Amino acid sequence: MYAVEVRDHIMIAHSFRGALFGPAQALHGATFVVDVAFFRAELTDEGVVVDIARAHEALKGVLGPLNYRNLDDLPEFAGRNTTTEVLCRHVFDRMAAAARAGALGAGSEALARIRVMLHESHVARAWYEAPLEGAAGPGARVQVQA
Amino acid sequence: MYAVEVRDHIMIAHSFRGALFGPAQALHGATFVVDVAFFRAELTDEGVVVDIARAHEALKGVLGPLNYRNLDDLPEFAGRNTTTEVLCRHVFDRMAAAARAGALGAGSEALARIRVMLHESHVARAWYEAPLEGAAGPGARVQVQA
Amino acid sequence: MYAVEVRDHIMIAHSFRGALFGPAQALHGATFVVDVAFFRAELTDEGVVVDIARAHEALKGVLGPLNYRNLDDLPEFAGRNTTTEVLCRHVFDRMAAAARAGALGAGSEALARIRVMLHESHVARAWYEAPLEGAAGPGARVQVQA
Amino acid sequence: MYAVEVRDHIMIAHSFRGALFGPAQALHGATFVVDVAFFRAELTDEGVVVDIARAHEALKGVLGPLNYRNLDDLPEFAGRNTTTEVLCRHVFDRMAAAARAGALGAGSEALARIRVMLHESHVARAWYEAPLEGAAGPGARVQVQA
Amino acid sequence: MYAVEVRDHIMIAHSFRGALFGPAQALHGATFVVDVAFFRAELTDEGVVVDIARAHEALKGVLGPLNYRNLDDLPEFAGRNTTTEVLCRHVFDRMAAAARAGALGAGSEALARIRVMLHESHVARAWYEAPLEGAAGPGARVQVQA
Amino acid sequence: MYAVEVRDHIMIAHSFRGALFGPAQALHGATFVVDVAFFRAELTDEGVVVDIARAHEALKGVLGPLNYRNLDDLPEFAGRNTTTEVLCRHVFDRMAAAARAGALGAGSEALARIRVMLHESHVARAWYEAPLEGAAGPGARVQVQA
Repeated sequence: MYAVEVRDHIMIAHSFRGALFGPAQALHGATFVVDVAFFRAELTDEGVVVDIARAHEALKGVLGPLNYRNLDDLPEFAGRNTTTEVLCRHVFDRMAAAARAGALGAGSEALARIRVMLHESHVARAWYEAPLEGAAGPGARVQVQA
Repeated sequence: MYAVEVRDHIMIAHSFRGALFGPAQALHGATFVVDVAFFRAELTDEGVVVDIARAHEALKGVLGPLNYRNLDDLPEFAGRNTTTEVLCRHVFDRMAAAARAGALGAGSEALARIRVMLHESHVARAWYEAPLEGAAGPGARVQVQA
Repeated sequence: MYAVEVRDHIMIAHSFRGALFGPAQALHGATFVVDVAFFRAELTDEGVVVDIARAHEALKGVLGPLNYRNLDDLPEFAGRNTTTEVLCRHVFDRMAAAARAGALGAGSEALARIRVMLHESHVARAWYEAPLEGAAGPGARVQVQA
Repeated sequence: MYAVEVRDHIMIAHSFRGALFGPAQALHGATFVVDVAFFRAELTDEGVVVDIARAHEALKGVLGPLNYRNLDDLPEFAGRNTTTEVLCRHVFDRMAAAARAGALGAGSEALARIRVMLHESHVARAWYEAPLEGAAGPGARVQVQA
Repeated sequence: MYAVEVRDHIMIAHSFRGALFGPAQALHGATFVVDVAFFRAELTDEGVVVDIARAHEALKGVLGPLNYRNLDDLPEFAGRNTTTEVLCRHVFDRMAAAARAGALGAGSEALARIRVMLHESHVARAWYEAPLEGAAGPGARVQVQA
Repeated sequence: MYAVEVRDHIMIAHSFRGALFGPAQALHGATFVVDVAFFRAELTDEGVVVDIARAHEALKGVLGPLNYRNLDDLPEFAGRNTTTEVLCRHVFDRMAAAARAGALGAGSEALARIRVMLHESHVARAWYEAPLEGAAGPGARVQVQA
């Protein structure tokens, strides 16, 4: 299996609900350095997994609506804790939709898996990895938010 | 699959037996930067894999008896080389026991896998990854050493 | 000149005033990985610049009141932007006071300089470095906030 | 599963064919920091995955013919783009051959998998990972290029 | 003294003349991760050393003409080895001109020093650091190439 | 001022005397990642600070007698704590002698300063930096131990 991974980052505010989080229940924030890896069994004719420039652009598109925001104010996270894990899944879902819709280039519908990793500090990080099920065909209803 | 990973470190002395090890047969030492990743198919209601604060505490508990020690003197390693690989397994076994005993919080019995990675320098590292078999039930006999 | 440096981190929310800051005028946040370096011309009898364990403790004491907070709410930053540079100076002033008051151990009054560096992402960081003027004598009025 | 990973690097020139590559169609270059990970279900009697010193040597042998070269001039890459992904596979094939031929030490024929990761910058990297099929027996025809 | 530092990178080909360089006399290449630090005695009213967004833009402008190029073909390097050290100075000169011309924002003429660091691999880097002499006044003849 | 820096590492055992060191009074060990930076006002005709290959060789020569050793057994450290700071100075003295004796190449007698930095973990490091006083002339008595 081949993989290629690109990096970007966001700087956000948020707070958590639940005694589990201790002092992180207060409004605080984080820099998340975000790595997105794309997996594919075979390379394209050009010799790549995906067009890395388009992958960077797609990631920037997904992160833009989160960057320099207080995540507590965003409707898509209403009623949920925006933990590092939850944000991994959020970015995964949008990158997967972008891939299925062909936003990463001609071969991106053949991607096998995507992994999204968020580094929250030099001592903690989280990730979410899953297969991409079903390329976007003519009748596909996926909607790219990137 | 979701994962969350925490980092700590130890500074130990040890020596190896076997011509394979060349100059490392002499008493020397290492700083091991230790990453422990916890894998789980679904998040808890709070939106986490495990309570990261408790994970850090559990890791500190496992590393404490090794830190600032000459591993050649510790009974649990008698007759074995404390290679980076062997230490990965040592930390894994204790973190797995802690997880099964619920030391990482209410949901930790649902963890699917653990990976323990030890960085021994800027050019070498090792890891051990395996599934966690069997959550600790009422009659579980596992003993947490952390 | 000798130096020793220790690392810790904080996760905070804040916002900036001024068109210069563009989207960062909104409430957002950051993880700051904080490095504090202590400079001294000669080593102590034990062979150190300062007691590294006490240095870690002093840094934790200085960072504690900032960690998991919205810096916009803290009186000590009223009317000021808590830019990375301003926070470097804030941590410097408190670490310098700690040093002058002997909080880093017996020899800490002989420190020549301190440098505080805050990494805000994988592509940006800032620091403040200055000499320590005047050790705390019997009548010193400095107050350690750590 | 156990793994051990070693690091080295190369500095090469190359160019790409295909509109996909934009400005990278021109002759340019890269530093590739190369990590090779060896996976094995059980450790050897000495407590290792492979002899790390021999692994470093084997990697150096594989990278030597590429280092300080213009890859456009090398016959083994004629007609192909030497993308990061393609180079991962190139290094994988040669490390796999070295493993099957026993160049990593007595136990290297029992390796389960190899992963080769090339870091091309602080924001992009690629890797190739696959099982090692078939240890080199008496009649094995594999030829080690390392 | 305050400092703020931003990071970008380039991927270039080049060759060196001189027996000193051994195999690096052949056409090869490098990824240079480039850090530029700006030093200033006091902060601006907004609390910054320079506008970090404009600093990133200025750096991108300086690196653009080098990126994805064979430096052996560029007239500005004719007759010189484009070593890591020489490239540090090249980037320094252009960033200094940009600063003197006010390209980093209103306060950039008050910068005291600039340091340019190029990382060529995980085991080698170089830098050039010097004071900025003379802000650009009305009659200044400096020409910003960024 | 120009600088070039090279990296290597050692893995050693040692113990410390003095209540200051707490648990580190016991025999333990460390991986030290070692960076040595060479400073020079002007570049050589070839465009370098020093021959980086010879710098790497000289550093390897200095580190060799320490690597895979228990520093408590080495006569040169008798009666002293081999703290990170003390080891920085040890490596500095030997690298300075190598430079003065011309071991880094023809121009190495013109070096202005050397800095030796030892990283002991992901959260602590130390360094020693000083001018190089006096190049090795015909009658110089310095003895290179590298």
